[in-house]
Amino acid sequence: MLLRGRPRTLGAAALLLLLLIGFFLFGGDPDCELGGEREARRGGGGGGDPRSVPGSPTPRVPPDGRPRSQGAATFDGDPPADPRGHNRSDCIPPPPPPPPPKCELLQVAIVCAGHNSSRDVITLVKSLLFYRKNPLHLHLVTDAVARNILETLFHTWMVPAVQISFYNADELKPQVSWIPNKHYSGLYGLMKLVLPSALPPDLARVIVLDTDVTFASNIAELWALFAHFSDKQAIGLVENQSDWYLGNLWRNHRPWPALGRGFNTGVILLRLDRLRQAGWEHMWKLTATRELLTLPATSLADQDIFNAVIKEHPWLVQPLPCMWNVQLSDHTLAERCYSEAPDLKVIHWNSPKKLRVKNKHVESFRNLYLTFLEYDGNLLRRELFGCPCPPPPGAEQLQQALAQLEEQDACFEFRQQQLTVHRVHITFLPHKPPPPQPHDVTLVAQLSMERLQMLEALCRHWPGPMSLALYLTDTEAQQFLRFVETSAVLSARQDVAYHVVYREGSLYPINQLRNVALAQALTPYVFLSDIDFLPAYSLYDYLRASIEQLELDGRRKAALVVPAFETLHYRFSFPSSKAELLTLLDAGSLYTFRYHEWPQGHAPTDYARWREAQAPYRVQWAADYEPYVVVPRDCPRYDPRFVGFGWNKVAHIIELDAQEYELLVLPEAFTIHLPHAPSLDITRFRSNPTYRDCVRALKDEFHQDLSRHYGAAALKYLTALQQPRGPA
Amino acid sequence: MLLRGRPRTLGAAALLLLLLIGFFLFGGDPDCELGGEREARRGGGGGGDPRSVPGSPTPRVPPDGRPRSQGAATFDGDPPADPRGHNRSDCIPPPPPPPPPKCELLQVAIVCAGHNSSRDVITLVKSLLFYRKNPLHLHLVTDAVARNILETLFHTWMVPAVQISFYNADELKPQVSWIPNKHYSGLYGLMKLVLPSALPPDLARVIVLDTDVTFASNIAELWALFAHFSDKQAIGLVENQSDWYLGNLWRNHRPWPALGRGFNTGVILLRLDRLRQAGWEHMWKLTATRELLTLPATSLADQDIFNAVIKEHPWLVQPLPCMWNVQLSDHTLAERCYSEAPDLKVIHWNSPKKLRVKNKHVESFRNLYLTFLEYDGNLLRRELFGCPCPPPPGAEQLQQALAQLEEQDACFEFRQQQLTVHRVHITFLPHKPPPPQPHDVTLVAQLSMERLQMLEALCRHWPGPMSLALYLTDTEAQQFLRFVETSAVLSARQDVAYHVVYREGSLYPINQLRNVALAQALTPYVFLSDIDFLPAYSLYDYLRASIEQLELDGRRKAALVVPAFETLHYRFSFPSSKAELLTLLDAGSLYTFRYHEWPQGHAPTDYARWREAQAPYRVQWAADYEPYVVVPRDCPRYDPRFVGFGWNKVAHIIELDAQEYELLVLPEAFTIHLPHAPSLDITRFRSNPTYRDCVRALKDEFHQDLSRHYGAAALKYLTALQQPRGPA
Repeated sequence: MLLRGRPRTLGAAALLLLLLIGFFLFGGDPDCELGGEREARRGGGGGGDPRSVPGSPTPRVPPDGRPRSQGAATFDGDPPADPRGHNRSDCIPPPPPPPPPKCELLQVAIVCAGHNSSRDVITLVKSLLFYRKNPLHLHLVTDAVARNILETLFHTWMVPAVQISFYNADELKPQVSWIPNKHYSGLYGLMKLVLPSALPPDLARVIVLDTDVTFASNIAELWALFAHFSDKQAIGLVENQSDWYLGNLWRNHRPWPALGRGFNTGVILLRLDRLRQAGWEHMWKLTATRELLTLPATSLADQDIFNAVIKEHPWLVQPLPCMWNVQLSDHTLAERCYSEAPDLKVIHWNSPKKLRVKNKHVESFRNLYLTFLEYDGNLLRRELFGCPCPPPPGAEQLQQALAQLEEQDACFEFRQQQLTVHRVHITFLPHKPPPPQPHDVTLVAQLSMERLQMLEALCRHWPGPMSLALYLTDTEAQQFLRFVETSAVLSARQDVAYHVVYREGSLYPINQLRNVALAQALTPYVFLSDIDFLPAYSLYDYLRASIEQLELDGRRKAALVVPAFETLHYRFSFPSSKAELLTLLDAGSLYTFRYHEWPQGHAPTDYARWREAQAPYRVQWAADYEPYVVVPRDCPRYDPRFVGFGWNKVAHIIELDAQEYELLVLPEAFTIHLPHAPSLDITRFRSNPTYRDCVRALKDEFHQDLSRHYGAAALKYLTALQQPRGPA
Repeated sequence: MLLRGRPRTLGAAALLLLLLIGFFLFGGDPDCELGGEREARRGGGGGGDPRSVPGSPTPRVPPDGRPRSQGAATFDGDPPADPRGHNRSDCIPPPPPPPPPKCELLQVAIVCAGHNSSRDVITLVKSLLFYRKNPLHLHLVTDAVARNILETLFHTWMVPAVQISFYNADELKPQVSWIPNKHYSGLYGLMKLVLPSALPPDLARVIVLDTDVTFASNIAELWALFAHFSDKQAIGLVENQSDWYLGNLWRNHRPWPALGRGFNTGVILLRLDRLRQAGWEHMWKLTATRELLTLPATSLADQDIFNAVIKEHPWLVQPLPCMWNVQLSDHTLAERCYSEAPDLKVIHWNSPKKLRVKNKHVESFRNLYLTFLEYDGNLLRRELFGCPCPPPPGAEQLQQALAQLEEQDACFEFRQQQLTVHRVHITFLPHKPPPPQPHDVTLVAQLSMERLQMLEALCRHWPGPMSLALYLTDTEAQQFLRFVETSAVLSARQDVAYHVVYREGSLYPINQLRNVALAQALTPYVFLSDIDFLPAYSLYDYLRASIEQLELDGRRKAALVVPAFETLHYRFSFPSSKAELLTLLDAGSLYTFRYHEWPQGHAPTDYARWREAQAPYRVQWAADYEPYVVVPRDCPRYDPRFVGFGWNKVAHIIELDAQEYELLVLPEAFTIHLPHAPSLDITRFRSNPTYRDCVRALKDEFHQDLSRHYGAAALKYLTALQQPRGPA
């Protein structure tokens, strides 16, 4: 028993050794011949050239005799018919090439346009980052929408050892827009063709990825396959895992020319240097132009053209092992790959149905995809130990600020939350900004998952643009997406911008959220509301008319107050006019907001005067006043130090008053608060004396800053504070 | 430029080849000598034996000249001083051994006891499953608590290609309980010593893991290191990454004997066959007994004993590369390992502070840990493609049932949700069952994240045992844990059992949740409540007294009705007596439950009679009746077909009535519903006609089953249904 291990180990070792001798001494061809001369094989005679076996149902590619693959590199499960006549079926695959050096920078290019692709690319990048051990440089070819989203995202994501460069897709359009194309990726798919000229001239190698691929392994292993390229090869590709290019899928299906099944361009290893030297641009344009004489358009965008060029210049291509692009298209043959391969490396959702594609194993693949879709991106802020990389912008200052906090400080949690840089995904869903109008108003609010139910009602009450910040986990963001998709009311609206701020920390960063929503409002005015309020149906129109009438544009610095009320019943009939509202108020079905708990929050609005008012009237600031107001978009931001419950809105109104905004109450405006259970933060505020102490400490610091900033003018706020009251 | 790749590749290939020739031909020693004789090295002379270099500050181990490691296998960053005098600093490490065959079954053993370790082990298992590509057999040595939790969990988890075996830790106790031990793992840590006899005699190899390790790689790579074992080696271990065993950490620190820094036993490769043959049991007992003559107790449990045995029999150990057990203890020296290693494989939270340990890189390690802590375990139900493994019990039937659903069915979502097997983690937090009492009552309820705020109030109102099912994601389960830990009220209670049912699907599986909570209630009676109700302060005592008084035990088959009321205000003063309640009711501050929206749900309780009642009175079932009741624990289960909103409780009361439970209203009992925003399911029910149709379809099917089961006796329910009403 004790001796069992050794002979077996030795046997395996000897076999491996023999294979390796063959591999390394004789040119890295995994054909299992332990001799022969490399040069004799090159340029392969007759049978070795797939072009000479037309109609072969499963042509196997290696056009120049280079090792096409390792592991389950051949796409079919059946023993590959070697083009040079060798039987490879009893071969043991060679070991994968050694990984690139520990800290080598890997280059990745992705074309991405629009809101939906921006979401997709993030899932791809999450999978990439999860497994990577190397610094990465992402080259993103984007339209304006995607750039706006991704720039904000990566800036706030702060992942160590990731560089991002953007390239303007609009500038590249003319180079490909002449190609008629029927593929759903539109013009953007074709842009992969122009990468050799679009990317920096000193960039020699890049891995090009479609937005619909998911990594299940370390991209360095893929990068290592560049080492398999022969001297001339410039494009590494996985064989297409469907019969599309064989042209037998349906009657009259006439695909673009390709070698056998052709190649899939969802994952490409590009030797940019060689392509430039080989005159790639001229090459593909010539081929495309010629094919378009007889073919009406590309069906699969760049992939058709890549395949046509490769058919013409087969020496360009280095076939890659199938597991590096497991294609889950509608009629995929990928099972032949993944049931044999020791491992799955990259999956590719290359059906227009994406995750809804039918496939008996799709559930397992979907689980892998969902892993990254729902993965908390914050956790990818992991250092690469031992790799000296410049920290992301702002990361060092943040680290220093965090390091200065004292864990013993009772308000440590508050301090930490204030400093937290939340990952922000602006315009998470498709969004069309409203056409510019001089008096337009955007409703600004923030919410988390438990207030999602408010959105439909809000849409019914506010027909104008909205900018909403949602505080969500990555998982919740997906639930939110499904929620909107299944709501007819919500999916009909294109003027509601949803900005996802990813959760981190235990306190609700209310003012940071408000600032995100505020910064993304695109109209000249904003209505600063809260998610549990429903505005009067007429409010949107009324506000625009009021702004115009009051000539706020430039002439007056004012905050228009929208009086707030509340109902205690879930079901109630929303008043359609001020008169109706007053009737309900008198009947005790409605109250002025927080009438029972915190009347001073809205008392300065002077509800008695409002009852009778026919015209806007000015009111004076008083302590604890926190009305809902309409202000110009460039109004002061909310003070981000206020996190959790307490004083977050009060401080903003003080800031407005200090900056001499007139407070004008609108006589026909109103908004009504709907009942909900107290938030976790309110509960903590009420039950936890330390929490209350911290809010008080924040208030004090706020007042100190106020005095520093506004001098004697700020004295009145401090005086008001001296009078003992609880915080709002 | 075109020719650059080749010479470099060839150079590296040649180097690698030479190394491999050395490695395979000359005994697998990665010492970079390309000659010499293996046998001559064995049994090493003087300098080769660490025992002969006492006091050496960084003794490097290889006690028999076997390859200790690969990659950054040496724990220190500085060039290792080879015990045989060779300088290895300029060696290139040999490649890792080839992975085990695609579908080889890997064996893993873990000792786990108690509620907290059970949570830890799940995180470990999630990391293991995430990266694994092989079938696994987990051997779990557990106490009764852990077994109960883990058996339920794995049964409902249904992960393909995972076998589980349980071993009774209590039976193993006598074998180790004689060893005085000061380590926080208690007796359980020591049980790793007895695995060779506790595990099945035909089990030859096993990887033994502590519950506080996290995988960052495929365990097959670790398993492959068995191939490095020499003929006699039986224990693979990573060197200890602290100076503990050097005995210089503090004055008078006298550690157990060890080779140099000793080894860490958080990750062990065990050749059980060889240990059994070598007389392991005798060996370690002898060593332990002898050391205990001079040492008072083990400080590090099994690790002290393993090290003492190894010091005596160094031929037993095969040192493993440091990255397979990166130890984040308080004074860890692990950075020397992970900053050089190409990769991190396993991290080990071997400080009693666990994740709160101080370490400048701890944030990154914590992120990896949190990845799995918060990972949706459902996503690990992934097939191993190409490995023929028997499906988990029940999985095939489930697949068939799911396959029979029609996606076109408007109620598809409902059908799917009904069939879903939710992962269940019973007693997620430490729980002490109450001592058995004949009339004791457990409050049974279910909730999701948005009702967490209710728990403290509920604890104040109900001083008795509770069994609560929580519908959470894995991430939310951690938030819940923190919520309880930071609440003085909740953490003081040991008689509240929290059972986490993991979320899956879009409809709230309300009756499945109720059934989980009900099944885990341990008292003879249960109060079937809902989470948004607060019972009268006296209810727990009153119910027990009533049960005794009414002689329910065995004599009467009855459901005791607790009349339900509601308040519309968040803040209200809870009535301390029935008299006070009636005053509030008369004042309009309280209502009978759903008085406005759905009076028939509670009308049969006969509130008018209750006002005056002095003794329990019997009421008759009527359509839509859904009171809150106290029943024996063995009462009928809730019908799991009702998911989402609607009819879930009504059906249960019908079932009770059909089984001839008397409905007895208790004159002094009451419970009050607190206000909250309508749930997402209620909102969908109200807004979506399809949703309502599906609830109606479920009702119809329920009635058909009822007729089938109870025959003519069920006619009255059907008749009641005929009268047109909306569903509750």
